[in-house]
Amino acid sequence: MCGIVGIYSKKRNIANLLFYALLALQHRGQESCGIVTRNSKDFKVEKGMGLVTEVFSAEKIKKLSGNVGIGHVRYSTMGLSKIENAQPFVVSHSKVNLAIAHNGNIVNVIELRKKLEASGQAFVSTTDSEIIAHLIVREFVKYGDIVYAIKEVMRKLIGSYSLVILTQNELIGVRDPLGVRPLSIGVGDGIKVIASETVAFDVLNAKFVRDVKPGEIIVIRDGEIESYRYPSIRTAYCMFEYVYFARPDSVINGTPVYKVREKIGRLMARKDDIEADIVSPIPDSAIPFAIGYSMEKNMPYVESLIRNRYIGRTFILPEQNMRELAVRLKLNPVETNVKNKRVILFDDSIVRGTTSRRIIKLLKNAGAKEVHMRVGCPPIRYPCMLGIDMPTREELIAGNRSIEEIRREIGADSLRYLDIDDLIKAIGIEREKLCLGCLTGEYPVKMPKTEQVPLKIYYERIKS
Amino acid sequence: MCGIVGIYSKKRNIANLLFYALLALQHRGQESCGIVTRNSKDFKVEKGMGLVTEVFSAEKIKKLSGNVGIGHVRYSTMGLSKIENAQPFVVSHSKVNLAIAHNGNIVNVIELRKKLEASGQAFVSTTDSEIIAHLIVREFVKYGDIVYAIKEVMRKLIGSYSLVILTQNELIGVRDPLGVRPLSIGVGDGIKVIASETVAFDVLNAKFVRDVKPGEIIVIRDGEIESYRYPSIRTAYCMFEYVYFARPDSVINGTPVYKVREKIGRLMARKDDIEADIVSPIPDSAIPFAIGYSMEKNMPYVESLIRNRYIGRTFILPEQNMRELAVRLKLNPVETNVKNKRVILFDDSIVRGTTSRRIIKLLKNAGAKEVHMRVGCPPIRYPCMLGIDMPTREELIAGNRSIEEIRREIGADSLRYLDIDDLIKAIGIEREKLCLGCLTGEYPVKMPKTEQVPLKIYYERIKS
Amino acid sequence: MCGIVGIYSKKRNIANLLFYALLALQHRGQESCGIVTRNSKDFKVEKGMGLVTEVFSAEKIKKLSGNVGIGHVRYSTMGLSKIENAQPFVVSHSKVNLAIAHNGNIVNVIELRKKLEASGQAFVSTTDSEIIAHLIVREFVKYGDIVYAIKEVMRKLIGSYSLVILTQNELIGVRDPLGVRPLSIGVGDGIKVIASETVAFDVLNAKFVRDVKPGEIIVIRDGEIESYRYPSIRTAYCMFEYVYFARPDSVINGTPVYKVREKIGRLMARKDDIEADIVSPIPDSAIPFAIGYSMEKNMPYVESLIRNRYIGRTFILPEQNMRELAVRLKLNPVETNVKNKRVILFDDSIVRGTTSRRIIKLLKNAGAKEVHMRVGCPPIRYPCMLGIDMPTREELIAGNRSIEEIRREIGADSLRYLDIDDLIKAIGIEREKLCLGCLTGEYPVKMPKTEQVPLKIYYERIKS
Amino acid sequence: MCGIVGIYSKKRNIANLLFYALLALQHRGQESCGIVTRNSKDFKVEKGMGLVTEVFSAEKIKKLSGNVGIGHVRYSTMGLSKIENAQPFVVSHSKVNLAIAHNGNIVNVIELRKKLEASGQAFVSTTDSEIIAHLIVREFVKYGDIVYAIKEVMRKLIGSYSLVILTQNELIGVRDPLGVRPLSIGVGDGIKVIASETVAFDVLNAKFVRDVKPGEIIVIRDGEIESYRYPSIRTAYCMFEYVYFARPDSVINGTPVYKVREKIGRLMARKDDIEADIVSPIPDSAIPFAIGYSMEKNMPYVESLIRNRYIGRTFILPEQNMRELAVRLKLNPVETNVKNKRVILFDDSIVRGTTSRRIIKLLKNAGAKEVHMRVGCPPIRYPCMLGIDMPTREELIAGNRSIEEIRREIGADSLRYLDIDDLIKAIGIEREKLCLGCLTGEYPVKMPKTEQVPLKIYYERIKS
Repeated sequence: MCGIVGIYSKKRNIANLLFYALLALQHRGQESCGIVTRNSKDFKVEKGMGLVTEVFSAEKIKKLSGNVGIGHVRYSTMGLSKIENAQPFVVSHSKVNLAIAHNGNIVNVIELRKKLEASGQAFVSTTDSEIIAHLIVREFVKYGDIVYAIKEVMRKLIGSYSLVILTQNELIGVRDPLGVRPLSIGVGDGIKVIASETVAFDVLNAKFVRDVKPGEIIVIRDGEIESYRYPSIRTAYCMFEYVYFARPDSVINGTPVYKVREKIGRLMARKDDIEADIVSPIPDSAIPFAIGYSMEKNMPYVESLIRNRYIGRTFILPEQNMRELAVRLKLNPVETNVKNKRVILFDDSIVRGTTSRRIIKLLKNAGAKEVHMRVGCPPIRYPCMLGIDMPTREELIAGNRSIEEIRREIGADSLRYLDIDDLIKAIGIEREKLCLGCLTGEYPVKMPKTEQVPLKIYYERIKS
Repeated sequence: MCGIVGIYSKKRNIANLLFYALLALQHRGQESCGIVTRNSKDFKVEKGMGLVTEVFSAEKIKKLSGNVGIGHVRYSTMGLSKIENAQPFVVSHSKVNLAIAHNGNIVNVIELRKKLEASGQAFVSTTDSEIIAHLIVREFVKYGDIVYAIKEVMRKLIGSYSLVILTQNELIGVRDPLGVRPLSIGVGDGIKVIASETVAFDVLNAKFVRDVKPGEIIVIRDGEIESYRYPSIRTAYCMFEYVYFARPDSVINGTPVYKVREKIGRLMARKDDIEADIVSPIPDSAIPFAIGYSMEKNMPYVESLIRNRYIGRTFILPEQNMRELAVRLKLNPVETNVKNKRVILFDDSIVRGTTSRRIIKLLKNAGAKEVHMRVGCPPIRYPCMLGIDMPTREELIAGNRSIEEIRREIGADSLRYLDIDDLIKAIGIEREKLCLGCLTGEYPVKMPKTEQVPLKIYYERIKS
Repeated sequence: MCGIVGIYSKKRNIANLLFYALLALQHRGQESCGIVTRNSKDFKVEKGMGLVTEVFSAEKIKKLSGNVGIGHVRYSTMGLSKIENAQPFVVSHSKVNLAIAHNGNIVNVIELRKKLEASGQAFVSTTDSEIIAHLIVREFVKYGDIVYAIKEVMRKLIGSYSLVILTQNELIGVRDPLGVRPLSIGVGDGIKVIASETVAFDVLNAKFVRDVKPGEIIVIRDGEIESYRYPSIRTAYCMFEYVYFARPDSVINGTPVYKVREKIGRLMARKDDIEADIVSPIPDSAIPFAIGYSMEKNMPYVESLIRNRYIGRTFILPEQNMRELAVRLKLNPVETNVKNKRVILFDDSIVRGTTSRRIIKLLKNAGAKEVHMRVGCPPIRYPCMLGIDMPTREELIAGNRSIEEIRREIGADSLRYLDIDDLIKAIGIEREKLCLGCLTGEYPVKMPKTEQVPLKIYYERIKS
Repeated sequence: MCGIVGIYSKKRNIANLLFYALLALQHRGQESCGIVTRNSKDFKVEKGMGLVTEVFSAEKIKKLSGNVGIGHVRYSTMGLSKIENAQPFVVSHSKVNLAIAHNGNIVNVIELRKKLEASGQAFVSTTDSEIIAHLIVREFVKYGDIVYAIKEVMRKLIGSYSLVILTQNELIGVRDPLGVRPLSIGVGDGIKVIASETVAFDVLNAKFVRDVKPGEIIVIRDGEIESYRYPSIRTAYCMFEYVYFARPDSVINGTPVYKVREKIGRLMARKDDIEADIVSPIPDSAIPFAIGYSMEKNMPYVESLIRNRYIGRTFILPEQNMRELAVRLKLNPVETNVKNKRVILFDDSIVRGTTSRRIIKLLKNAGAKEVHMRVGCPPIRYPCMLGIDMPTREELIAGNRSIEEIRREIGADSLRYLDIDDLIKAIGIEREKLCLGCLTGEYPVKMPKTEQVPLKIYYERIKS
């Protein structure tokens, strides 16, 4: 769960543009962020814990001089939450200086780390980016060609990786051969942009050109875009980008996210025979599902819950009923809308189920007669291995439970999930081209034997 | 534009509850905030510029010991934006110590100030609260009875004022005889609450009991609620609370805000003969209008604009097209939803019109064939004198323009406003009981002759 | 314990000069500070808790535009430590706007406050400055002349007060008729300065012109200096400015502070028959005493204790031996200099005696054979009523103890204080012109009966 | 210019002790600081730019749990000023985790870096510590023994290095075979301490045990101290620690710093035939020189300049005469002491000479008749290669100038430096055992050919 962006301009300083692009990608990670620019041959670096608006000031943006650079917003999948793990990761070698920002998850990172360690390499962070950076440096030292070096490294990496890389001569974008995480190319007024999502282009008034292809290496040198390919046998586009992670106004792999979500709502409506008065989303991410459902069923679309826009990551004072309070601070039922009503309530997905239970209780306390939970994503039964932060199977509410068991646990009057075939239909991409690992347990890459628990846990083991 | 709250508990510290309540009222003012609690006879004060989450830390909340207190969020109507004007305002006198938080606008403040000055009184802020505080102290010194003192002050005040007042013995709520600004009473687990809006009760798990009546003085002493009345000839409930200012999940003067907004959308739909494909709101405040319209017309309700939730009051770097950038950072069109579409676009109100123009341009650039602006509030032709921060008549786009002129200026294909009769119908309160001053120029109080420009300007004149 | 400064320039912004002057006066108060400037008719205000370098940034200095202004550093004597009490105190009245900064202590403040309260005045701080400001406003409203108003207020004030006052037309300096606290006039390159100590002139490259005379009112209007006099029956220059409070490089009432301290050392040496090896100061304030003693006795002057320059007001972590640690962090003995030595150790004064005990123990632990304490100020037996923050008589180690008892308590091998006659001789000003209240209990003003405890305590009583 | 410390306790958390020790060592570096502790096998890290009191809060100290750890204060000699270069440097490898803090300068760092790079190693900082850390990891991976690994690395390092190293099992102190930088062992109440200077022991109430010997490796494992030796052919104790860098209350290589400085003053007095009235130091570092001179000559020791204790590293506003202002803010002449006087003014050393010129001018402006500059360190003619930050030979005022030329340039009436023989006599250590490189250009290590300019410049070249 990260967002990345790289920007090149012929002449202008671009730190402000990276700042705006990171604001547009902030939903992809709120833990830390960073920008690296290059002024002539010199790298300028600013990183910090927190939101983009918290880390960067006008003064810092000014210091980040240079006409080319990369940026990163991070939500940790691997590695612990600390400043050492903030990206972009910057390394210096007399032959090549690199700044690198990564979105994804390298599955064989432990094996790669062990190999590097055998040659004496030690590490300052617990990120994949550091491993990738050292691998690239070593191949570059051997071959002296950055594209060749990256290809050699791609041969070694198993997993998902969308990368932006800054060298002393190039701005480079890389997407893994499976294309798990999105990466797109945009062009604006004198600028070239590579970014996780197309919303980054919108904010810069740049036009979406095309996706970076799975296995493609995009090199921007002196403003010219070159393209290189590493063979891609199959693709495995992450379905979760569509149902939850990406912004609804983004277009991923050529498919508008909003449309997918609206269609999911429609498809679920067609199969749903429940009697109800209104359909409502848990805002904001479930809105298009509920709208689609409402249109298909011709059932009133109503706001049942209002989100407090001023509760960001506010501290919660230590209280007895802390978790309940946290939900109540964020979401407030509109009593007049739900009283004595049978409510269809849409969520984008259910992971642990605890929040769902609290929200249903909120609505019932506000007078809802029935609450029928509808979930715009099939049951998540397995942890993601390719870049979405998820708990272990034991913690996943759908890990070992039937739908009926889940329904009882969250206190819904009925519970329906999207089914996988409808998910595929809504996305409009063949099943074989998608990654459905968290739904089916069938991952598009061979997982190292030992690693059937989330990789984060492995990293913690390494650490001690 | 302010939010106020007072909380009493028999035994518990209530600073955390005031903090949560202010979070729920944050939409009423983001410039500064403050909390005053009373521990035995001692007042504890914390105030600062910025959002509630920025000003208060767990440590500060801990310092605010005491079982009774008041809080305030402020958006300046009168007085300049500076820490001296942050509320609650606290004064100390050997006979009575007061902390006071005010929502509203005193129309005859200059006259009152002059009278006080004649007796030698000087001032440290440019707030109404300071004037009110000094008036109360003086009457209390004369009569020795706080309720009597407040009534005497009410005789002098012209304008709108919902107040919470903390003394060494009482927590007091006051609503002006016109009842312009809302004020409600709630009761929760061992606590009594007076707050601007009912959402403050929801977050505290407290129940709404009733509104403070126009002209009523609520005194909470040792946990007992007493009620006193100052005569109220007529009411003048602010219509703008319904169409824009209050949260949709609040109930104001017995009427749920969401319902009013939804009904406005329905009423406008009934009179609207435009041909269009979809109806969309400018999020978040215009959502219920668009939903109501959609239901009445059976026209698809669609999200055309996505709001970036991470752009708070972020600094905008100095740029050429700064204002345009600001809009683009906040709102992004969903191209797939608007391309080649005829869009009905709802806004809650148009004040200056500049933002409307930029948003319409955004949608057209994203491919919208037509943009038909619908406004859930009749044209604002006059400045508000009773507590909503508005520009002068010259700056109001509807101040001296016809609808057609406005339409051309904002670049809409058509433009329709709610009409006043439908506004009254939607609110469901008789015209005579509402304040429609900013629509008609007929204010419920006699305005001092000189004061046909916003009072803020007067205050600035006083200052120099 | 405060420092004040006012600066006028014909044309330049002077906030930076006020900033430098406050840095030079920082020793007079470290709790809070503030600057008020006037740009045309507009007052600019910045105040905060902490040191001058902590409160002011280049950005804030820039905001403080204007060619005339005043500044203040505060260590609370009266009033509690909070932002409301930071000075300058600013009040606004249609007839006159005032900013006022005060050094001293008004003895009859409670009586004055009561009189103001009788007329309905309430207060926002617990400072003398607020009282003085309101009194001036009231007299100005009556008479319309600022000098006349100030004279009327001087008739009412009992106690010590050096003031700088900023109005919309004037910069004013006032010194009480007793001249208790210092105040001087300086002239520099296009600037006129009024400041507590001459070191403020040095830093501005300004020349000392003369002291403000006791009872004098200095008015700077359009760059012209006018002088007005309130009758001064006698003076009562504070002796503590010479022995401890002022900087050694200042000249107070025409007498260089360094010279007074050096002479005190010499006079004490003449009467001292103790056998010792070296003489050392507790740095920094006792250095000139020890140098004078060393010269007179021809005894080696040696640094026995090194002060850590990086320990400002650092937080001390909660520890068992916190106080001891605090002393050890600040002062470290030079073992090689004290081992097996008989040390004459100079301090400027002993208030509670606890620090003296710890320092003597430090030296003994470092191997000092004998430690003979010498104190450059006679025993402080009574609290100061005129502006120096001191504890009650009970807490003063010399309040009710003989010299021998004190010696035993602090663990010195011998203890000698300066005697009062030598103090007078060293200062070179007649006894009748000095305030020796804290030494003799004979104060130069009639104290209100009730106030034989420090006034701070009274204020705390008022508060509740 | 750095300070290092390591502390071991059987049971207690020691982060607070590291904090106090760093406060005592703060004079050795004010740019950045850091602490790493070990709790069981887990490293806790806190680093930041600025003073110890600015970087560490009670909260951060609490997070740094663990009974063993190391700390560092840094003033950059090599590497640029940025957070990436803050120490201790921490690396992680499955075979060994290391935190390392370094005081000194590795002369052959470029060569070492190139060798590491040849094997593919890239770097995240420009510090020697990173190089040393990677070298140790590699040797450890080869041999599996930490002491053996360190010895192998010592064989490769040319230059000065006092190190404290934290591993998962040991706390280690290392001093280079020349013993250029100091390092001492102390023992306190249940704690063992290794620190740059003995003042760190004083603040912890620990006793100095002995110096770490040149070439010695001290290993603290489970509370037991082991000692290992790398052969030391000769020593080269830095003379500059005695004349300027160390605190006067420290004991370096068995010699008290204060005594050396006092003796230097005496020796200079014996050879000095100038007629003068008083002798004064530039505070604080030159005080013991002036005291020694005063005693030997029986000439009055007088404070001529008072240092403002509140000017830390305050920002200086952009002004015309900025540099002059900076001096005036820090140092103020005591006019009464210097007027019409012939002043002997002591400084510890002259590097560029610009400050000396300004101070002499200050004294002359204050009325000094003559200012005779005396310098407690022989002329610095060559840059230091072993850890003191100095400018290039061209920038050193004594680099290519005669004493008479320097005298004219700084505006002194006479100028005398300590001569080298007297320096040696004052320190009391044979010439062959000292490093006098910056005085004579004869360095105790063979310098790589190319590196006759300060190494910092080389590093800047590497960077681009």
